[in-house]
Amino acid sequence: MVPLPLAQLMDQFRRLPGIGPKTAARLAYHVLGMERERALALANSIIAAKDKIAYCSVCFSLTDENPCAICRSQTRDHHTICVVEEPRDVAAMERTRGHERNRGYQGTYHVLQGTLSPLDGIGPEDIRIRELVERIQTGDVREVIMATNPNLEGEVTATYVARLLKPLGIQVTRIARGLPTGSDLEYADEETLAKALENRREI
Amino acid sequence: MVPLPLAQLMDQFRRLPGIGPKTAARLAYHVLGMERERALALANSIIAAKDKIAYCSVCFSLTDENPCAICRSQTRDHHTICVVEEPRDVAAMERTRGHERNRGYQGTYHVLQGTLSPLDGIGPEDIRIRELVERIQTGDVREVIMATNPNLEGEVTATYVARLLKPLGIQVTRIARGLPTGSDLEYADEETLAKALENRREI
Repeated sequence: MVPLPLAQLMDQFRRLPGIGPKTAARLAYHVLGMERERALALANSIIAAKDKIAYCSVCFSLTDENPCAICRSQTRDHHTICVVEEPRDVAAMERTRGHERNRGYQGTYHVLQGTLSPLDGIGPEDIRIRELVERIQTGDVREVIMATNPNLEGEVTATYVARLLKPLGIQVTRIARGLPTGSDLEYADEETLAKALENRREI
Repeated sequence: MVPLPLAQLMDQFRRLPGIGPKTAARLAYHVLGMERERALALANSIIAAKDKIAYCSVCFSLTDENPCAICRSQTRDHHTICVVEEPRDVAAMERTRGHERNRGYQGTYHVLQGTLSPLDGIGPEDIRIRELVERIQTGDVREVIMATNPNLEGEVTATYVARLLKPLGIQVTRIARGLPTGSDLEYADEETLAKALENRREI
């Protein structure tokens, strides 16, 4: 007895990740209660994001201009490339810069758009490794920081890329593993604690 | 460094109820990864729901036809009106019917579109009480089931409406407190709701 357009809207929301049937229903009823202009703004922003945003042809992050603002920037360090899995990881790294632009990460990025995953049949040719090698061969890159996720696929990918790049005569580093700031030693898993111990530094 | 159309989409998602900044970001990146047709379907369903759905002029529930399917139905019991707070509560009551149409609630509805709330300055003239009285005065209504939420505002509203309707010579009942106090009708399971309906008592 739910009117069809409402049922269809619930169904659309339900297809989104992490949205179950009850949340979908709540969102759909909320949309019906919104001012028409607000609902239009939501719908239009979906279409605008989809139509105006594409992958940067240099770093393969998401951008509304090509190359992206970071790849075009005169103030970024183009000798350093931070390699991440997904565009959202670029946004995470950029947050290290805070409000002062002379802090945090100053270099550029390369988005692999995935990780190696032999079990899922995802090999080197399925992610943007070839394009990374080309960037290094044609540019003046001195360091590549592997910032793939600290899980099985991320580690495998970091190791594979490092072996591929080292013969090119550049430094390849891996972001540190340790205890997250504000966490509790008592609740840290053994793997994290072991890595934190292994990577200890003199104070 | 997030491209503007992406930031705008995140902002739009963040305005939805229960969606925090991280979920908004996850949804926005997901939309960018969707097929364009799928993203359009989502955007269009928002506009379609908003444009095609309005309030039924009889029961004030949401419908894409006026009067709504329940108000027009020949098989529903039009002598019985179940009074609820919001359109989503109609959907919840309808779920008591399950797949067999001879079970659960057989009557019609009246959506108050709110509750009395003296503290918030919401009085009888701010919700659809006048329209309910008119329906009873012009139709052959024998029983009104008050199915407002089992919380303070819902009880106050149920009691107020009951006092108003009893002089009209009809039976006014309240769904049983099988529902846990302080909970929300919208989220009740069908079985609890069916029991509460079955155990309704005169007020």
